[in-house]
Amino acid sequence: MAGLNDAARRLVESGVLAHMVTKNDDGSAQVSVVWVGLDGDELVAAHLDGRQRKLANMRRDPRVALSFEAQTSNEIGMRHYLVVHGRARITAGGAPELLGRLAQSYVGPGTVLPPMPDPPPGFVTHISVTRVGGQGPWSTATT
Amino acid sequence: MAGLNDAARRLVESGVLAHMVTKNDDGSAQVSVVWVGLDGDELVAAHLDGRQRKLANMRRDPRVALSFEAQTSNEIGMRHYLVVHGRARITAGGAPELLGRLAQSYVGPGTVLPPMPDPPPGFVTHISVTRVGGQGPWSTATT
Repeated sequence: MAGLNDAARRLVESGVLAHMVTKNDDGSAQVSVVWVGLDGDELVAAHLDGRQRKLANMRRDPRVALSFEAQTSNEIGMRHYLVVHGRARITAGGAPELLGRLAQSYVGPGTVLPPMPDPPPGFVTHISVTRVGGQGPWSTATT
Repeated sequence: MAGLNDAARRLVESGVLAHMVTKNDDGSAQVSVVWVGLDGDELVAAHLDGRQRKLANMRRDPRVALSFEAQTSNEIGMRHYLVVHGRARITAGGAPELLGRLAQSYVGPGTVLPPMPDPPPGFVTHISVTRVGGQGPWSTATT
């Protein structure tokens, strides 16, 4: 398994948004912008709504890609970015707790999420990293 | 053809980065973060290097998706974002001029790009919009 280096781990945990790409059954890309965090060597995302198309897509084809914008740029002003390719595994439950944890970095310390009193257990996607790309201190890959 | 509404056009022209998704020949996603602009109803991107994998991918399968982060958020603090699905057409030449134009919004007014004295003509990707998604004032689509 490929892994994230320290710079990539710091970026993922800094509260930057993940552009999450799964594959529709007609082969086209499905893209959602989501919150993600780390759980050991895996990336994790929470889904309160089990009917999301990306969940059905990952159950059919577990290959997923996530891209993140960095704050740094290269010498001509083009922003660094991280692309993580991985394989998704979906487990039932735990979405409210993970959303609550991620809200601390994505919205701010002390944020209480989900907003409803009795949220559904939802689903958590666990993504094991298979390849790292992009432009920045985590990759020598080209576009 | 689907079109971008005024809010979507303003976002695309505001200098926010585009996460551009094409499809590798094994069906996996290829993701690059790029600069894009508008040319009438189409989105345009410049490529100085004609060997980029995304160009080969779009020649094989012209379906492309681009996602953009907005500055606004929904009621629980999740950021709005725009997803543009389209079909790509690649033309030869014009990349230095387009990069120079896009640099004005992506880097800043007065920026001179490309950085080399005699840049290659490169390629321009023209994307006609087939579907608009995401979360924000441009879509009623769900994730």
